[in-house]
Amino acid sequence: GCGKEDTAIEKEVEAQTTASTETKQPEVIAPHKDLNQEPVPLKIERVSENVVNVEMTAQITDIEIDKDYTYKAWTFNGEAPGPVVVVNEGDTINFTLKNMDPVIPHSMDFHAVHAAPSKDFANVNPNETGTFSYPANKPGVFMYHCGTAPVLTHIANGMHGTIIVKPKNGYPHDKEIDREYLIIQNEWYKYNDLDDFTNGVPSQVVFSTKALEEGAQNTNGDTFTLKDKPLLAKIGDRVRLYVNNVGPNEVSSFHVVGTIFDDVYIDGNPYNHMQGLQTVMLPASGGAVVEFTVTREGNYPIVTHQFNHATKGAVAYLKVTAT
Amino acid sequence: GCGKEDTAIEKEVEAQTTASTETKQPEVIAPHKDLNQEPVPLKIERVSENVVNVEMTAQITDIEIDKDYTYKAWTFNGEAPGPVVVVNEGDTINFTLKNMDPVIPHSMDFHAVHAAPSKDFANVNPNETGTFSYPANKPGVFMYHCGTAPVLTHIANGMHGTIIVKPKNGYPHDKEIDREYLIIQNEWYKYNDLDDFTNGVPSQVVFSTKALEEGAQNTNGDTFTLKDKPLLAKIGDRVRLYVNNVGPNEVSSFHVVGTIFDDVYIDGNPYNHMQGLQTVMLPASGGAVVEFTVTREGNYPIVTHQFNHATKGAVAYLKVTAT
Amino acid sequence: GCGKEDTAIEKEVEAQTTASTETKQPEVIAPHKDLNQEPVPLKIERVSENVVNVEMTAQITDIEIDKDYTYKAWTFNGEAPGPVVVVNEGDTINFTLKNMDPVIPHSMDFHAVHAAPSKDFANVNPNETGTFSYPANKPGVFMYHCGTAPVLTHIANGMHGTIIVKPKNGYPHDKEIDREYLIIQNEWYKYNDLDDFTNGVPSQVVFSTKALEEGAQNTNGDTFTLKDKPLLAKIGDRVRLYVNNVGPNEVSSFHVVGTIFDDVYIDGNPYNHMQGLQTVMLPASGGAVVEFTVTREGNYPIVTHQFNHATKGAVAYLKVTAT
Ligand SMILES: [Cu+2]
Ligand SMILES: [Cu+2]
Ligand SMILES: [Cu+2]
Ligand SMILES: [Cu+2]
Ligand SMILES: [Cu+2]
Ligand SMILES: [Cu+2]
Ligand code: NA
Ligand code: NA
Ligand code: NA
Ligand code: NA
Ligand code: NA
Ligand code: NA
Ligand SMILES: [Zn+2]
Ligand SMILES: [Zn+2]
Ligand SMILES: [Zn+2]
Ligand SMILES: [Zn+2]
Ligand SMILES: [Zn+2]
Ligand SMILES: [Zn+2]
Ligand SMILES: [Zn+2]
Ligand SMILES: [Zn+2]
Ligand SMILES: [Zn+2]
Repeated sequence: GCGKEDTAIEKEVEAQTTASTETKQPEVIAPHKDLNQEPVPLKIERVSENVVNVEMTAQITDIEIDKDYTYKAWTFNGEAPGPVVVVNEGDTINFTLKNMDPVIPHSMDFHAVHAAPSKDFANVNPNETGTFSYPANKPGVFMYHCGTAPVLTHIANGMHGTIIVKPKNGYPHDKEIDREYLIIQNEWYKYNDLDDFTNGVPSQVVFSTKALEEGAQNTNGDTFTLKDKPLLAKIGDRVRLYVNNVGPNEVSSFHVVGTIFDDVYIDGNPYNHMQGLQTVMLPASGGAVVEFTVTREGNYPIVTHQFNHATKGAVAYLKVTAT
Repeated sequence: GCGKEDTAIEKEVEAQTTASTETKQPEVIAPHKDLNQEPVPLKIERVSENVVNVEMTAQITDIEIDKDYTYKAWTFNGEAPGPVVVVNEGDTINFTLKNMDPVIPHSMDFHAVHAAPSKDFANVNPNETGTFSYPANKPGVFMYHCGTAPVLTHIANGMHGTIIVKPKNGYPHDKEIDREYLIIQNEWYKYNDLDDFTNGVPSQVVFSTKALEEGAQNTNGDTFTLKDKPLLAKIGDRVRLYVNNVGPNEVSSFHVVGTIFDDVYIDGNPYNHMQGLQTVMLPASGGAVVEFTVTREGNYPIVTHQFNHATKGAVAYLKVTAT
Repeated sequence: GCGKEDTAIEKEVEAQTTASTETKQPEVIAPHKDLNQEPVPLKIERVSENVVNVEMTAQITDIEIDKDYTYKAWTFNGEAPGPVVVVNEGDTINFTLKNMDPVIPHSMDFHAVHAAPSKDFANVNPNETGTFSYPANKPGVFMYHCGTAPVLTHIANGMHGTIIVKPKNGYPHDKEIDREYLIIQNEWYKYNDLDDFTNGVPSQVVFSTKALEEGAQNTNGDTFTLKDKPLLAKIGDRVRLYVNNVGPNEVSSFHVVGTIFDDVYIDGNPYNHMQGLQTVMLPASGGAVVEFTVTREGNYPIVTHQFNHATKGAVAYLKVTAT
């Protein structure tokens, strides 16, 4: 063929490459190319009545967010969202952040604490460790996330999660709760693409659950795991969900099909009590405790009722059995 | 002309067809092409103190959603949104769904009831009838919708509506209410286009009202009817609106120009009481009861204050007269 | 070159022009081209115990909304958002609107009042003055805006602001407040482009503050001023923010990094009390009073946690010093 035809073929090849890039293929930054760091477990240890030591690790780890689609996520502890942190109202948190990322600084912004962000949420450089201390003096379901600039990039690439601060005096219906789970909603976009993070619509909107006790189910934010391996309950159970919408951009209309929330506590604070809600509105970063009763055997979908987002993945199942 | 020229012409014709399709022309699926099923009325009958029989029909019916633009909607009872269902707190609903759609199964998910979705909200096949029974034991303003997969397609094509469960003990200001209406917000997108439903922005955002008593105004979700034929009130009236945002995708910032909501009950539950709101935030599927007083003669626009959506149609008028 | 080549060049030039137009270059309407009207101050005067005269001016004034990007805004009093108006619960407002726009009518819709919009929020023609009177009988943080059709164009071009109605009996923690500020969120789009207002995403999302007392900081809605010149507080201060999201289209997830809101009053009504919120959900036009304590020296970012919007500008700083 002549030169023109060659160019045409090249363009076609390029177009196909671009097309696949735009849909699924991550454009990993060079120093992350060969990295898939083994998840380092969260360390959490109570060292006195009101003091808890928490150690987390910023690391680069592959996460399967959709069937056969792996995202080389920027993570806390190799999970996205990161592991749940549970402390008590009134605790002081002594926090250590290890940064295993070879090139990018990371940091930690706990919504649960009082702290001066410019110092207490400061960057930890690659291969370094930072230590911080702050009080968690309000009960609730709070977001945490990396606060390093550009913040949207760090959150959207996977550096988000939930910290639960258990209320000193509990919730009104604590004794009636038969089982409880944490559900986190997050969005995924084109890989590490700040323009898409800023101006695009999410490619996936997903739910995950995190183990509230040892051995419990603990998943990443993906489109399929909580459909394939549902949360479980039994007929008559009163179920509590701790819910957190970590965004980065979208609000959530959180709903469980087949039931009505008997009691809702906005941001998980017992003072913010609502009753009989079909759907709870969660701002970006907002949390809630929702409690409901399942009265019949079968599958109950958990969704955001912004159904474009449910269609992109944000559906989990609660399987209710007779015994 | 030669073969190439013919191809070019064909492509141009195709492009024009596509263009017009992309704006207004519905791409109706083949088995629906000649269908415009006459609306079958909702049947609702109280058979004992706490038991009510409700019968609804899934059917394919033309709806004029914008002046001179007809949408061959997937509907309940030939309306989109479907007819309002009103029951009492504590009722058992015996529900019958007739499916007149010749090819697509449909189903019913009432947000007002406790039920196992996988069984009690099950599909009813074309030309078949399903029966279900479940309790409506929480008061409020709830969404209902078809729950057949893909759910977003069924909701966005028109299969949504409102069920009101009247609170056993009423609302605090029941005796002061002079008139009440139901306002439903929904979005329309490109005809039966799951990609546009999922990734697009709405082409129309609309309000409708449904008759709360026989002979009252009952409209479809369109851009014009509630402008041409306003809701009515008189000076000094305390007006109650039952409000429901059925989505499928967007949240609503519900507002009435010229007044302030004296009392608001989120999701219509008397426990969730707020006062003095200028605007009520409705998640997708969320409801509210709002009450306000109109003190002067004139026209009061009812809007979502997300003004891109108001611009796309979501404006109704309340006309207040002296006598 | 031949005719075809000339055409190609012209098209390229046109494309470049269009491109730059689409990003930054305003397309000002002809009669506004040479206008940059000097801001006319808000006039507000209490004429008796419960009557206040307010005079505002609709005018065309250049606003720097992003570094080196000037928007020829449609404004109240040469500011966008307009100046804050503060009255007392129970006041009657005698309102005068002067319209200095040579060609376009404008009007005023105060969310704080009871009024018949078709009369009391009526258009004032170019170079004319309108007078109106209505009661402000509910406390709170309310939006105001021009209500002239197309309303979205008037709001999006800059005609919005906040009116605070101080509650007769105050807020529960009035005596503990050490300093207070008003923060307004608004979006900017392509200049005077109703299609982009309706279907686009914002190019900037911004915060501003308005002087609550004489000599206090008073800014326009831009991406930089409240970063360069932060709000100020001292360690231990209890800070109150009056917050208002004037849209026109987006909801807000209002959050202050490093603290938790001790007390929140939705729409600024003392009845709508929440506690311990990390983030407050604001509908389009919604307001709130939020109170929090800053316990450590440093910079606290104020954001909408819809981080695509924060990335587009909606970040302000609160600088906390030791003494
Ligand atoms: Cu990070
Ligand atoms: Cu639903
Ligand atoms: Cu259906
Ligand atoms: Cu308004
Ligand atoms: Cu105007
Ligand atoms: Cu945050
Ligand atoms: Na995207
Ligand atoms: Na948004
Ligand atoms: Na569309
Ligand atoms: Na959305
Ligand atoms: Na834009
Ligand atoms: Na929107
Ligand atoms: Zn980071
Ligand atoms: Zn109980
Ligand atoms: Zn229940
Ligand atoms: Zn259906
Ligand atoms: Zn009353
Ligand atoms: Zn009122
Ligand atoms: Zn105007
Ligand atoms: Zn106090
Ligand atoms: Zn605090």
